Amino acid sequence: MKVLITGGAGFLGQRLARALLARGELRDSQGRVRRIEQLVLADLVPAADFGDDRVRILTGDIADPAFLRQAIDTDTASVFHLAAVVSGQAEAEFELGMRINLDASRLLLDTCRALGHAPKVVFTSSVAVYGGRLPDLVRDDTALNPRSSYGTQKAIAELLLNDYSRRGFVDGRVLRLPTISVRPGKPNKAASSFASGIIREPLNGQASVCPVQPEAKLWLLSPGAAIEALIAGHELPAGVLEESRTINLPGLSVSVAEMLAALETLAGPEAVARVRFAPDPGIERIVNSWPAAWDVTRAKALGLAADADVASMIAAYVRETPGLSLERDR
Amino acid sequence: MKVLITGGAGFLGQRLARALLARGELRDSQGRVRRIEQLVLADLVPAADFGDDRVRILTGDIADPAFLRQAIDTDTASVFHLAAVVSGQAEAEFELGMRINLDASRLLLDTCRALGHAPKVVFTSSVAVYGGRLPDLVRDDTALNPRSSYGTQKAIAELLLNDYSRRGFVDGRVLRLPTISVRPGKPNKAASSFASGIIREPLNGQASVCPVQPEAKLWLLSPGAAIEALIAGHELPAGVLEESRTINLPGLSVSVAEMLAALETLAGPEAVARVRFAPDPGIERIVNSWPAAWDVTRAKALGLAADADVASMIAAYVRETPGLSLERDR
Repeated sequence: MKVLITGGAGFLGQRLARALLARGELRDSQGRVRRIEQLVLADLVPAADFGDDRVRILTGDIADPAFLRQAIDTDTASVFHLAAVVSGQAEAEFELGMRINLDASRLLLDTCRALGHAPKVVFTSSVAVYGGRLPDLVRDDTALNPRSSYGTQKAIAELLLNDYSRRGFVDGRVLRLPTISVRPGKPNKAASSFASGIIREPLNGQASVCPVQPEAKLWLLSPGAAIEALIAGHELPAGVLEESRTINLPGLSVSVAEMLAALETLAGPEAVARVRFAPDPGIERIVNSWPAAWDVTRAKALGLAADADVASMIAAYVRETPGLSLERDR
Repeated sequence: MKVLITGGAGFLGQRLARALLARGELRDSQGRVRRIEQLVLADLVPAADFGDDRVRILTGDIADPAFLRQAIDTDTASVFHLAAVVSGQAEAEFELGMRINLDASRLLLDTCRALGHAPKVVFTSSVAVYGGRLPDLVRDDTALNPRSSYGTQKAIAELLLNDYSRRGFVDGRVLRLPTISVRPGKPNKAASSFASGIIREPLNGQASVCPVQPEAKLWLLSPGAAIEALIAGHELPAGVLEESRTINLPGLSVSVAEMLAALETLAGPEAVARVRFAPDPGIERIVNSWPAAWDVTRAKALGLAADADVASMIAAYVRETPGLSLERDR
């Protein structure tokens, strides 16, 4: 079988690629375990191929039909659609967000539909589909009420994937990811970028600005747990998804203050001292529109899991970052 | 000001046009009461102009950007977007439904956005955005879970209108219409077509087939009350819609058996005898996925109203249909 990852050069895409190459096989929409013969990594910029000859790198625009036809062919049994314009950028550049988050997602579904064999399609979605007056615990049947263009575009992609699946065009599943923390690398234009920055930068000896209040609550998942959930979500048989193709993934509900307390325990007060609070009303408005926690009964029943606690999320980042170690381990 | 009605040749479009011409004015997005100088009726087929020189008839494809640019110009202050491919047809002809219910709605929003003055845009939506396991009373914050392509497309158009309004591109409002009954004319391809047919055909001395069980519950609104709600929804100041631009309109929750009982009271047993039950699993599946009633606290607080009872809905149809009268009035 062939597997496509869009956004394959991105942080989650690269991590998912490594995990799939190590695993070597996936269950197709007929429930058969099949060897991954080719893993296509499509992105705007060239992805790393890890020196593995199963990897095929494609560079181009995911919203271009000709590019998608290159990326998807009759042997394509699974697609992980991770490519997206992040929340802050989709708010700042409306047309770009619509083009990538909505049009490209629809084009991808239509390209898969044209194959005729209903490939598995995994979309990642986000807390940003919720907003407005929310219950303390967001449930699977809480109304979508996005307060950002990003959330709107993700909610639309969810609806499309559900309808295409209901009609048998694809065997889709949407996994709503909590905010991923701790991401490696540099800050990005996501409104939630600080959720990694306030841990990552201090650990690397750098200053970090937190644009929300210490009381602000986030719903977090580590990169490693996210990759496990993406693969587990892919492997679920379609039969258990009849009610809805959209699954709220488990996460940890944590305040910024709790994150910094865990950072202090692991890395000392000098690490926390590198974080400066400078509230940004634009980011606060977006972040505060997201739910701080959701009911994940269904996801847990399906075998999907969150991290144990914030400390283990921070420790995972340190463990996975070359050259980094915690005070206490030095 | 100019006002556009898409689907202007349709039953609701024509009725809305007559009501707007009689009214002569509307409140624009700045809250100013303005005279309707021109009423554009756009549709695939030519609309009636009622011999009123304020009416301009446009015939063409609402999903064609050039046609929409003809229909909307800098003087356009309000758009009522009623054009749609109905539920049964959108299920049977997937691409057509996507093109009209989704692409044309988005194109209309983009065309309005390009005007730069955020015109008022009224979208009609439907019970079909709900589905799956539903609470007895659907609330404004009940999750959308469409089980038809029509419902999916309407839900997406709702999300787009909300985001375009939030961003200030348009001053939009979505009115979720109950099933309209009694519609005049002939059956159409809507899954709910029978909700008018089982009243209309017997009153006209014709046989009618009911494709659902007598226990099936519908959520009904008369054409007259629907037009009043469309205009009232248009006139609402944007300030009262901050929570959401989408409003569930009040309706009556009635079973098919209750409709026929009212018909019998008004038109005698011979009228009811013209209805034959022949369950159609395809239609039953769609109709039973719709909620039978919803919480309309918000709509009522905004001054929107339903019909008094089924009997008055049937009586309204008789009153508005030339040559028809009830047994009891003869």
